[in-house]
Amino acid sequence: MSEQTRFLLSENDIPKTWYNINADSPVAPAPVLHPGTLEPVTPDFLSVLFPMELILQEISTERYIDIPEPVREVYRLWRPTPLIRALRLERALGTPAHIYYKYEGASPSGSHKSNTAVAQAFYNKAAGTRALTTETGAGQWGSALSMACQFLGLDLEVYMVKVSYDQKPYRRFLMETFGAQVFASPTQRTQSGRSILAADPNSPGSLGIAISEAVEVAAASGGAKKYSLGSVLNHVLLHQTVIGEESLKQMDLANEYPDVVIGCVGGGSNFSGIAFPFLRENLRNGQRTRLVAVEPAATPSLTRGLYAFDYGDTARMAPVVKMHTLGHDFIPPSIHAGGLRYHGMAPTLSALVDAGLVEAVAVRQLETFEAARLFAHTEGLVPAPESAHAIRTAIDEALQAKALGEKRVILFNLSGHGNFDLAAYNAFNSGALENDDLSEEDIANIPARLPQVNLSIPA
Amino acid sequence: MSEQTRFLLSENDIPKTWYNINADSPVAPAPVLHPGTLEPVTPDFLSVLFPMELILQEISTERYIDIPEPVREVYRLWRPTPLIRALRLERALGTPAHIYYKYEGASPSGSHKSNTAVAQAFYNKAAGTRALTTETGAGQWGSALSMACQFLGLDLEVYMVKVSYDQKPYRRFLMETFGAQVFASPTQRTQSGRSILAADPNSPGSLGIAISEAVEVAAASGGAKKYSLGSVLNHVLLHQTVIGEESLKQMDLANEYPDVVIGCVGGGSNFSGIAFPFLRENLRNGQRTRLVAVEPAATPSLTRGLYAFDYGDTARMAPVVKMHTLGHDFIPPSIHAGGLRYHGMAPTLSALVDAGLVEAVAVRQLETFEAARLFAHTEGLVPAPESAHAIRTAIDEALQAKALGEKRVILFNLSGHGNFDLAAYNAFNSGALENDDLSEEDIANIPARLPQVNLSIPA
Repeated sequence: MSEQTRFLLSENDIPKTWYNINADSPVAPAPVLHPGTLEPVTPDFLSVLFPMELILQEISTERYIDIPEPVREVYRLWRPTPLIRALRLERALGTPAHIYYKYEGASPSGSHKSNTAVAQAFYNKAAGTRALTTETGAGQWGSALSMACQFLGLDLEVYMVKVSYDQKPYRRFLMETFGAQVFASPTQRTQSGRSILAADPNSPGSLGIAISEAVEVAAASGGAKKYSLGSVLNHVLLHQTVIGEESLKQMDLANEYPDVVIGCVGGGSNFSGIAFPFLRENLRNGQRTRLVAVEPAATPSLTRGLYAFDYGDTARMAPVVKMHTLGHDFIPPSIHAGGLRYHGMAPTLSALVDAGLVEAVAVRQLETFEAARLFAHTEGLVPAPESAHAIRTAIDEALQAKALGEKRVILFNLSGHGNFDLAAYNAFNSGALENDDLSEEDIANIPARLPQVNLSIPA
Repeated sequence: MSEQTRFLLSENDIPKTWYNINADSPVAPAPVLHPGTLEPVTPDFLSVLFPMELILQEISTERYIDIPEPVREVYRLWRPTPLIRALRLERALGTPAHIYYKYEGASPSGSHKSNTAVAQAFYNKAAGTRALTTETGAGQWGSALSMACQFLGLDLEVYMVKVSYDQKPYRRFLMETFGAQVFASPTQRTQSGRSILAADPNSPGSLGIAISEAVEVAAASGGAKKYSLGSVLNHVLLHQTVIGEESLKQMDLANEYPDVVIGCVGGGSNFSGIAFPFLRENLRNGQRTRLVAVEPAATPSLTRGLYAFDYGDTARMAPVVKMHTLGHDFIPPSIHAGGLRYHGMAPTLSALVDAGLVEAVAVRQLETFEAARLFAHTEGLVPAPESAHAIRTAIDEALQAKALGEKRVILFNLSGHGNFDLAAYNAFNSGALENDDLSEEDIANIPARLPQVNLSIPA
C-alpha cells in the first residue's frame, strides 16, 4: 500500500469567499498617494482606472468577501487545484521532511493568474467596461486575462515587456488565440513608451514601463477602457487566497499541518494567495507556521530594497504606495523569470515583512534552475522559472531538516508550469545561463531613486 | 446550484489491469511478417527490438494484464485524469447534447503518451536494457518517453521528424531537460537516414523514416539498446486502456453512458485507449456505443487507404503487418498535427474498422483549427492540433443532435494540450493555414506502393 500522492477536493469545496488579510493584520496599511501631488488619493482618482467594486475591495477591512457565483462557475473549469505530495523528490533528497505542493499550473492558462483575471473581468463587465488594458512580463498574467476577457466578452490590449515578447513568442500566440491584442513594450503608442524609446531605442522594457503604457491608455480612454493589474494590489492578493483556503482543507485530508509555507514573489500575489490563510491561522488560532517569500537575487526588493513610498510604475502615472522597492526607474536584469522582474512589492505584503510576520529570502538563478531540473526529473513537471524559486527554497528547507534529523512539513505553491519557458531551460541545459545578482552599486543607489514624500498626515 | 463540471476519481481508482481487446475481438489478428522474407516472424526476431514481456503482451489473448505496482506508482503523479463536462461549449453550440472529455493533457509530459512510456521503460529496465531508441513526430511521444527514461534510469535517443524538430524547438528543449539526446531525422547517423538524404537532402522527414533510424540503431546495438514505439502495436494500445477504464467509472459518476466515443488517430493508441473498454461493453454487455476514429484528410489511412500488408517503416526494416495504409514510402504533407503523420494504422484497430465495429471519419485542417479555437474560447484549454480532430467530430455530433432535436451523450479523448503547438495556432490566427487534403492521385497510387505478400499460411 503506497502513501497517498494527490489530495483532491470536489467542486463543492471551491471557496465561497476570499480572505482579506487587512481584517487581521496588526499593521495598518499606509495611505495610497496621488503620483502628482504625493497626497492621499480619493476613490475618484482610482475610479479612472478601476471599477468601484475593486476599489472597495482594495480598501476593505471586511474579513471575508463573497465570491460572485459566475466567478465560481468559471473556477470550476480547473478548481480546486490538486495538492500533491512530492514523494519522489523527498526520496531523491533522502529527507525526513514531507514536501507538498499546491499545483496552480493546472489552470487552463497555466498559472494562478487565472484566479484574479476572471474576477477582475467579471467586475469590469458588470460595471459596463468595454475593454481592458494591462501589462505582462513572462506572459502568465497576459494569458490569464486574455482567457478571462474572452470568457466575459471584453476586448483586451496587452503591453508585454519587450524582452519577454522576444523570448516567448508562444505566450503571444496564446494571448492572440484568446483574441487579445499584444504589443511589445515600450511602444510608440503612448507618451510613456515614446519617451523611453527616445532615451534608449533598444530598451528591453520592464514591468514598470509596461504598466505606465497600459495605465496611460486606460486613463486617456474617457472611461471606455479600464486598467487591470495582475499583482501588487490588495484586491489581487485577496482573489488569490482561494489557493491557501483550499490548501488548508487539503492538508487536513493529508492529516498534516505545514511547518513552513513557501511561495515565489514578484509582485507578491501567488505567495500571498497561499500564505495569508495560514497567516490568519497564526494570528487567530495559535498556529506557528513560518511563511517564506522567495525572490530572485537579481531583483531583491524584499531582502535588499528599501521599505518606502515609491511609484508603482516608471513614468510616475500609477499611484505611489509604501512598499519594498528598488526604485521605480530601476530596470532589472533580463532574467528568465520574467514574472519576477518588478521593482516593487505588494504594499500589504511589504508591511507584513516589515513587521516580521513573513520571512523573505533571495535565491540565485543557477541554483534555482538546478532545483527546477531536479523537480522535473523526480516529479515529471517542468516548473515555470518563477515557481522554481519556491522549489529552491523548499529543497533547502528539506535539506536543512535532513541535516537536523527532524521531520518538517513543507508546503509550497507551484504557481505555474514551464511549458512556455523552455527557451530558458535550453539556455540552462546548454550552460549559457549565469547568476545575475543585483550589484552592490545598484543597491546603494536605491535611495536616490525614491520620491521625497512629506505627508500632511502620518504614514 | 450548478451542474457538475468535473468528475474525479481517487488514486485507488487507478486501474489494476490493462484491457486486451484481442480477448474479445471477433476478428483474429493477421500474422506479423518478417520484412525480409515476408513470412511470419518468430519471437526471436522481435526480441532484437523489444523485451520479452512486451512481446508476450503483443501476442497475448488474455483479457486482463496486471499493471505492475511500480508503474501504478508513477501513474499516481497524474492519474486518474479528470473527466470534464464541456458545459460552456454545449451552451455556445446551443445543443441538447452532453459533451464530456477525458483530459489526458493533465499528464506531466502533456499527453496520453506517458501511460505507455512508463510501462515500456519499466519492462525494459527489468529486462536489463540500458538505453532505448525511438522516433517522435509532434514530440508528445518523445517527451513522454524522455520523462519515463529519466524516472527509470535509462538513456534515450530520439529521432525527431525534421519538420517537427524545426517547428517545435520547445519540444526538443523539453526532451533534453529530461536528459534525452534528440536528432533531426533523417540523420547521417544511420544507413536509412543517409539513403533518404542522398535522394533528397531537404527531406522533411516522416514518422516512417524516423522509425527506420531508431530501429536500425537498436538492431545494430548487440542488445544494449532496445527500440520503443509510441503507438501502432498491440502492447501500446493496451497500455492506453487505463483511459477508457477510468472513463467508464467517471461516466458512472455522471450518471450517464456515452452514445458515442471519439478519439483522433495517427497510429491509433489514444483512440484505442478510450474506445476499447467501451467496445468490450458493446461486445460483452449489450451496450451500443458508437466508436468513431478521426483522422486528418491529409493522411486518411482508415478512410482512403487500403487494408493490406505493408511495412511499418520507410526503409523496410520494421515488421510487415496487415493494416490500413497509404503505402510505407508515402511522405504525408507537413501538416501541423505532426502526431498524425503516419502512413499506416494500428493492425488491431484496422481489423476492427474493417469488421465494422469501429467507424472512421476524416476531417480537414481548417475546420479542425476552427473547432480548436471554439473549444479554447469556451473551455479555456488550447488543445493539441491532434486532439482537435476529436473535438471537430465531437462538435459535429453535437450539432447533428441539435438538428435532430435529440439528446446525445458524447465522450471524446482530449489526448494532449497544445502548449507546444502555438506556432500552428499562430499560422491559423494569421490566415496562413490551408486545407491540405491528400490528392486523388496520391490515393490512386497506393496499391503500387505495397509489398507483394503471398503467405504460405492464410492471413
